[in-house]
Amino acid sequence: MKKVMIFGSTGSVGRSALDVIEKDPANFKVIGLCANQDVKTLGLQVKKFKPDFVCLKDDKKVGQLKALLPKKTKLFKGETGLDEFASISSDISLMAISGIDCLRPLLINIASAKRIALANKESIVTAADLVFKKAKRFKTEIIPVDSEINALFQLMSVKNSSRSSENFRKIYLTASGGALASHSKKSLDKISVDQVLKHPTWKMGPRITVDSATLVNKAFEVIETHAFFGFPYEAIDIVIHKESIVHALVEFSDNSLFACIYPPDMKMPITHSLYYPGRFQTSKNSNFKSSFSYSFSPISYKKYPLLELVLTAAKRKDNSLVILNACDEVAIDYFLNKKIKFTDIHKAFRYIFKKYPPNKIKTINDVFYWDNWARAKTKSYLEKIS
Amino acid sequence: MKKVMIFGSTGSVGRSALDVIEKDPANFKVIGLCANQDVKTLGLQVKKFKPDFVCLKDDKKVGQLKALLPKKTKLFKGETGLDEFASISSDISLMAISGIDCLRPLLINIASAKRIALANKESIVTAADLVFKKAKRFKTEIIPVDSEINALFQLMSVKNSSRSSENFRKIYLTASGGALASHSKKSLDKISVDQVLKHPTWKMGPRITVDSATLVNKAFEVIETHAFFGFPYEAIDIVIHKESIVHALVEFSDNSLFACIYPPDMKMPITHSLYYPGRFQTSKNSNFKSSFSYSFSPISYKKYPLLELVLTAAKRKDNSLVILNACDEVAIDYFLNKKIKFTDIHKAFRYIFKKYPPNKIKTINDVFYWDNWARAKTKSYLEKIS
Repeated sequence: MKKVMIFGSTGSVGRSALDVIEKDPANFKVIGLCANQDVKTLGLQVKKFKPDFVCLKDDKKVGQLKALLPKKTKLFKGETGLDEFASISSDISLMAISGIDCLRPLLINIASAKRIALANKESIVTAADLVFKKAKRFKTEIIPVDSEINALFQLMSVKNSSRSSENFRKIYLTASGGALASHSKKSLDKISVDQVLKHPTWKMGPRITVDSATLVNKAFEVIETHAFFGFPYEAIDIVIHKESIVHALVEFSDNSLFACIYPPDMKMPITHSLYYPGRFQTSKNSNFKSSFSYSFSPISYKKYPLLELVLTAAKRKDNSLVILNACDEVAIDYFLNKKIKFTDIHKAFRYIFKKYPPNKIKTINDVFYWDNWARAKTKSYLEKIS
Repeated sequence: MKKVMIFGSTGSVGRSALDVIEKDPANFKVIGLCANQDVKTLGLQVKKFKPDFVCLKDDKKVGQLKALLPKKTKLFKGETGLDEFASISSDISLMAISGIDCLRPLLINIASAKRIALANKESIVTAADLVFKKAKRFKTEIIPVDSEINALFQLMSVKNSSRSSENFRKIYLTASGGALASHSKKSLDKISVDQVLKHPTWKMGPRITVDSATLVNKAFEVIETHAFFGFPYEAIDIVIHKESIVHALVEFSDNSLFACIYPPDMKMPITHSLYYPGRFQTSKNSNFKSSFSYSFSPISYKKYPLLELVLTAAKRKDNSLVILNACDEVAIDYFLNKKIKFTDIHKAFRYIFKKYPPNKIKTINDVFYWDNWARAKTKSYLEKIS
């Protein structure tokens, strides 16, 4: 019986994880649930899973939540409460808090969890070295939940085979191209929030869906690939594959490829991260029961200028990724709240990338310092142009 | 420096293997070449690779060959010569003799080679138990060269990974559908030899190209998969994939798939079988440099009656596979010589499958006894209907 904590239980990934866990009560016991502010959903989850510990980050809504909790449930609240909640021991912690807000609880929890199923990209993008160093020290296993990185994690087993001395020459991450793949560059000015949120293949939270449209999301996955598996950036490529069925491919030195293939359903990588090294069937087997095809085409970096910008930043190995991630979070928030146009996200990135003072990131405090700096700078820029 | 012997050096696979070996003289030395009767090609190969041993199976052409050989080259001739030639020690023997004629030299050579790169299907179809038993006794490695089986051999490294406890639930072999995939059942009566030999994706020898049109070839691959990797027949499926780029897929218990992908060029699996566990690049890397798509569709067993017939035979575990293979070799020979129609191949299979007396295969002599029996029976049947 594995004790599971879910950080971000009311979001898209958190809810899917609970759907998976619900089907296998013999193997998993949810001991902790944590949400930002969605008290209603959290209340229902507590009723169903009866966790010992519950955490709500938004202080103001604690009153509402209390009315929904059994007396014996221990409640943690606010930022300090989240720190304490993250110190509870678990077998598996699913980290599904969105944005850089995940970084602090993740770093604390690495010391208390045996395994972290990591569904958050931003903590790796902004602080990979700190995260992996601490995980190494505490011998905590980190399994990527992001579908492409999880697919690569699966494919890596080939490298670790006892029978072969395989080495990969290249990694290909697939990209659907996002909701705006078929839009011309000119038309992006008039794109509505609803249009951006209609992702062709994946159902995800709003922020990551916007990131998929700009391909900033894919740039973050390139950074994750580099951080998780140690591949140099030159060995990581992106290929457009609009069906989102093939998630990643590895290329051997003879040009042969291995591909990892499954339907675009986050339950697949979530399940893998919970059961690894075992597997568990979550969906009906529909492989090859009908006709279909997979398409691939080279990516146009010109069409996705933010992809190239983030990858340029990645190679600098300074604070630029922290800066760009903060800018991305703020700009997407403005866009989702209809304060700016879609193309203003591009403008904000270009502005901040010119303005930021390059500095090394050595500690978690450096991360938060530059995150705050970039948030303030982006906000004041966006207020001016909006 | 690996000593290499090539059995069937003048055929399609043999020639491709020599093309690969020629590029890497530091790693391979061809010590033996063996052909059936193509003296001209063999002579040129001897001139280029200067093997110590040469074998020609067709006695009548030995005079012609002698004139082309340097004095120090040791020549073996006829069936007895082939037995002696097969007893020579090697690091790698490529078995690329076509049809059941490969079985006897293969069984002899297992005792003298460290590795056998096996490009012959018929020896496995008719005598898998004898072959693998002897290979086990002599600790001889057998690596499949057949593209689909080689792809599976590559994918099997996942099962042997130290990091995971993976088990495959299902194996999918891909099939292009052959040269006649788009022809109606009615039109098959009038199909010419030239039409059958126009394979859409693979350049292969004539016999295997006809086998690809009837999908007997694919049935043989299912049998190879069963024999090489121990998968039950129920766990092996076929899927139509007309581009012949994805060669095989393995399915995990959570419905995820791994695919092995490379262009339809026999040099890829041949190279893999020579260099394993290493790899060597034989072709220009063209992965994802342009747009393309892979299509998949379920197979219609009704459309390929011989596929189902051979698979029914496989499950009987008697002499029926020896019988059907002999019938196939004879009927294809008649068809290629324009003595019978394409659909007469079907008739011959149905006839012999009704007539044969079921018996167990215990020794190599049993194989040859039933092979001869079925050849005579098929010939007399085809003479009658032709």
